[in-house]
Amino acid sequence: MTHPEPASPQTHPHEWLTDSNGQIALSVRFRGDRLFQEQSPYQTVEVFDTYSCGKMLTIDNMVMCTEWDEAAYHEMITHVPMQTHPTVKDVLVIGAGDGGTIRELMRYSTIETVTMVEIDEAVIRASKEWLPTISSAFGDPRLTLLVDDGIKFVHDATDASYDLIIIDSSDPVGPSEGLFTQSFYEDVHRILRPGGVITVQSESPSFNAKAFTELNACLKQVFGRDRVHCYLVFIPTYPTGLWSLTYCAKGDLHPLQNFDRAQAEQFAETHGLRYYNADVHQAAFCLPTYIRKMTEG
Amino acid sequence: MTHPEPASPQTHPHEWLTDSNGQIALSVRFRGDRLFQEQSPYQTVEVFDTYSCGKMLTIDNMVMCTEWDEAAYHEMITHVPMQTHPTVKDVLVIGAGDGGTIRELMRYSTIETVTMVEIDEAVIRASKEWLPTISSAFGDPRLTLLVDDGIKFVHDATDASYDLIIIDSSDPVGPSEGLFTQSFYEDVHRILRPGGVITVQSESPSFNAKAFTELNACLKQVFGRDRVHCYLVFIPTYPTGLWSLTYCAKGDLHPLQNFDRAQAEQFAETHGLRYYNADVHQAAFCLPTYIRKMTEG
Repeated sequence: MTHPEPASPQTHPHEWLTDSNGQIALSVRFRGDRLFQEQSPYQTVEVFDTYSCGKMLTIDNMVMCTEWDEAAYHEMITHVPMQTHPTVKDVLVIGAGDGGTIRELMRYSTIETVTMVEIDEAVIRASKEWLPTISSAFGDPRLTLLVDDGIKFVHDATDASYDLIIIDSSDPVGPSEGLFTQSFYEDVHRILRPGGVITVQSESPSFNAKAFTELNACLKQVFGRDRVHCYLVFIPTYPTGLWSLTYCAKGDLHPLQNFDRAQAEQFAETHGLRYYNADVHQAAFCLPTYIRKMTEG
Repeated sequence: MTHPEPASPQTHPHEWLTDSNGQIALSVRFRGDRLFQEQSPYQTVEVFDTYSCGKMLTIDNMVMCTEWDEAAYHEMITHVPMQTHPTVKDVLVIGAGDGGTIRELMRYSTIETVTMVEIDEAVIRASKEWLPTISSAFGDPRLTLLVDDGIKFVHDATDASYDLIIIDSSDPVGPSEGLFTQSFYEDVHRILRPGGVITVQSESPSFNAKAFTELNACLKQVFGRDRVHCYLVFIPTYPTGLWSLTYCAKGDLHPLQNFDRAQAEQFAETHGLRYYNADVHQAAFCLPTYIRKMTEG
């Protein structure tokens, strides 16, 4: 590490995007003007050109993804369930407006339909315009893209309709708040087919400890204690870098016992994945003791 | 996550400590005045009282440790080698002025001597005064504490003197720069007993990619490609949260093949460790693909 210059969020506030919970903050330096800035009916959507992370999408000053490290999140939320469930045909994705999760799903020719429900079309538009490597699969004919409220959608959906549901939300403020409630997950559970699985963006045990523990308890209420499995991902551009996803099964699928290492390794190689591999799949479920205790609370 | 207030590093520069590489920065909010501030002959040593991380030690604005998450670093740099080497009697520690590594080592009654060489007595003094839970083992009679230059110490030390050497340095600027050179590690290798191991603070693949890859290559030169094993730790208060340690063997010890899971799990429970457990020991060596490639360079 070198300190080539005194630049810091303190001295050049107009060059740094800061994602803060009031006590810890991550800042990323960017060039010139914002590439995209729009106050949608729901939130402020922006795209920045950063110095070291490529282009970066933010919502209300919270980092959603950067070109540099988005693979960690998108690969782990997608391939962990896909490499354990042998027959996923119909997928529902809530949120995920940047398109990265869709891109990873579309690598599987066995998937027949993907329904994506994103509440804010500005996020999709920003990503299509400025993040082409992330939004690259919006044209796939298997995709039905709905700009709509995910909470209402799952409430109205038919029982037992999906093999896999991915809840790829932003943090529980603003429009995503309802994605962190028990009634929402009861609907998710209901519209999942028997034997199906979900993965959920489940916040950071270090940066959002309260949201993390509450969501974990909520998921255990709905799916049952033994069918909820927290796993961890290194995401350098999320504050504290320590983030969690959660795998829940309606049935007996288990993220490690129903996992074919050789097949996963082959898949990761064939597709040139950047973060996910068979070792990382297994390792992600090994929680440091203090986090294990947070999930047992 | 909630945003209770607009406070950020940008708006209240006197309340935030910022650790930056010029492009990405982590900021931690603190109360009132610094608890400790001293310009030593080597660097600026400070202790802050933070809002969410307890007391925090910094050197030249780089976070060394906080009471909240120091266990991750200190447990992983110590117990990974200790749980694989069955007969560690004599240990050398370079750096580690806060005392956390010593505290972890002293949990092993089988260790007979620990020699610690820290160049800056101000770091030791700051920790003893303000971080009592971290500096708690400085009084152990097995410890020989030398305030001296670690590079000179290893150069002058006798061949084959130590079973375990821990290089617990700050980043490669200022007095720690020489701890990132091949001649230093050639001395370390020489003074290690046959069959001995070392662990090294080996920087962040995301925040200090150049230092990380260079040190990895250097260690492979000295120890041999198959005897260098990078492992990862989540450290929320280090910028990007993604940090590496490296295990190197002079001989055939392997961090996973020579690992007794049951014994490690028992040890972690008996001592009430906060981060380390048998699962985490194994998982830490599973590298995301892009980091695996960085170490294969």
